[in-house]
Amino acid sequence: MKAKRTIALDAMGGDVGPDVVVPAAVNVLKARRGEVRLILVGDRARIEQRLAELKCAPEDDLIVHHASEAVAMDELPSSALRSKKDSSMRVAIDLVKSGVADACVSAGNTGALMAMARFVLKTLTGIDRPAICTSLPSVAGHTHVLDLGANVDCTSEQLFQFAVMGSVLANAVDNIEHPRVGLLNVGEEEIKGNERVKVAAQLLAASDLNYIGFVEGDAIYKDGADVVVCDGFVGNVALKTSEGVAQMIGHYMKQEFSRNTLTRMIGFMAMPVLRSFRRKIDPRRYNGASLLGLRGIVVKSHGGADEMAFANAIDIAILEVAKAVPDRIHAQLESLLTERQVV
Amino acid sequence: MKAKRTIALDAMGGDVGPDVVVPAAVNVLKARRGEVRLILVGDRARIEQRLAELKCAPEDDLIVHHASEAVAMDELPSSALRSKKDSSMRVAIDLVKSGVADACVSAGNTGALMAMARFVLKTLTGIDRPAICTSLPSVAGHTHVLDLGANVDCTSEQLFQFAVMGSVLANAVDNIEHPRVGLLNVGEEEIKGNERVKVAAQLLAASDLNYIGFVEGDAIYKDGADVVVCDGFVGNVALKTSEGVAQMIGHYMKQEFSRNTLTRMIGFMAMPVLRSFRRKIDPRRYNGASLLGLRGIVVKSHGGADEMAFANAIDIAILEVAKAVPDRIHAQLESLLTERQVV
Repeated sequence: MKAKRTIALDAMGGDVGPDVVVPAAVNVLKARRGEVRLILVGDRARIEQRLAELKCAPEDDLIVHHASEAVAMDELPSSALRSKKDSSMRVAIDLVKSGVADACVSAGNTGALMAMARFVLKTLTGIDRPAICTSLPSVAGHTHVLDLGANVDCTSEQLFQFAVMGSVLANAVDNIEHPRVGLLNVGEEEIKGNERVKVAAQLLAASDLNYIGFVEGDAIYKDGADVVVCDGFVGNVALKTSEGVAQMIGHYMKQEFSRNTLTRMIGFMAMPVLRSFRRKIDPRRYNGASLLGLRGIVVKSHGGADEMAFANAIDIAILEVAKAVPDRIHAQLESLLTERQVV
Repeated sequence: MKAKRTIALDAMGGDVGPDVVVPAAVNVLKARRGEVRLILVGDRARIEQRLAELKCAPEDDLIVHHASEAVAMDELPSSALRSKKDSSMRVAIDLVKSGVADACVSAGNTGALMAMARFVLKTLTGIDRPAICTSLPSVAGHTHVLDLGANVDCTSEQLFQFAVMGSVLANAVDNIEHPRVGLLNVGEEEIKGNERVKVAAQLLAASDLNYIGFVEGDAIYKDGADVVVCDGFVGNVALKTSEGVAQMIGHYMKQEFSRNTLTRMIGFMAMPVLRSFRRKIDPRRYNGASLLGLRGIVVKSHGGADEMAFANAIDIAILEVAKAVPDRIHAQLESLLTERQVV
């Protein structure tokens, strides 16, 4: 029998808090009964009320853990770290630190989550700063991209560390033996780019990672790389730009289909096809970004995630627990560090 | 009567050279007879052969100007600058410098075009380095984005200069009195981002530009800003990422419509709608990036542009000549420099 995974959920995080987190938890538990134990961290009264509305109650595998505060979405990370010691976010992370939970998931303030997770859990030996990694759809399946905004200025060594973490993640969760790692740049030729990516490229070429060289932005959505590495500024812009393009395309498609009665009829007939197509690139199916490089598993959900999207983030946390992602990153770093010492 | 604009075309540039440039020139001339004079620069024999195939011949408004060399797409800019003095690209730029042409258009090697244009035409007073600017479709029309790759490392002052140039361009070609200028960042809050964008934001806030603050990547495709400013690394990644998303969406849509006979039939019926939709975001309609900040007008076409796309780049050059874009940028910079001296 597989061990039961315990996941702490920041029930107050995100745009609506318990209204999304509680039903998502109930659904995940229904689907994975016996496999998982969920801890809802936050305002006990609000959580229990939401449970009651769903005709549910706390039980052995759906525990309510009270926390008296909540981190606001626009709160400064430093102030949240200093003053919100009994916030749902902080307590969820504390539960991971103490070993009560195997992982935590939060849809709250990204900066505060990163600051608290670093402070409480600490980074792995050999990692300067954690990175945010998510998978994005590609024509071949998906691509892991990091960093997505935790580090707006990165050194070459940090880009190298991101590559190691991304490679371990792709190996662990996708069962790819030697994930193809590309370094995001403004061209594929070696002379392109700034000093940071050029030096990072040298570090990667000298490592035992399956480094495939520089890739351009479109590589994320093609079948070229399993992992795409970049600094957090570039990664965040790439992510948000992608969202913008997809939204604009959706806008124009809707506009064309609603032009007149005939086009509306065609749109109605095409609905099942369009729906099936939309499912393929549904951002909710990709919700859940991993904070990699920590001594523990922390998954960030989009603040505006709905039940389905938040449930997806919980599933990612469960998978990372099952695959012991931080231990694997640790082991890979150890071997790289030993290698360098030998050299 | 409007003055006749003279545009020099690098006929050897791009993936196929004269096979695209010559028919594009013939089409533009047909559409704008009396308004424009085009100079095809490159291998005379090849150009005239291509003209003959189109049942055309050189004439007063379609001049062939021989150049004995061509810049290769993968040639190092420094080497092209040094050794390709009789290349079609260089001669086309020289024609702008000497006043024979009002602007030039090339689908050739971007780095070489930038290096030659800077060397021959020089930058405007107050501009450190030129930027590459293109317009991208948005739900409201289009957005001008710069820099797209000319400058992989930018200072805050350069970002400010890009903002000035983008604002002047939007004002001139779109007749927007006070174009909304956004600075691309990883969040809209003032505390977000790296030092470069923070200082650039201060410069912009203190200027008389219509600066609307930090914007995220999706702002390019929404109706939020007329101009989005970023460094060339970030801009290039945003552009290529956008292309990748659009291609992936196209891939999945095609896949869904070709799933079986029924979906193929639905796809056939939906064809006019899908075609009209595709026209809206057709990258060919947006082909033609301006090299801004030079003492002359240079437009870069995509290397893989077809006739329609290349013709669009020629139209952009004609419009910028009509609107005297470099003179306007010069005037705006003069007034900003005077202002700073007064302060």
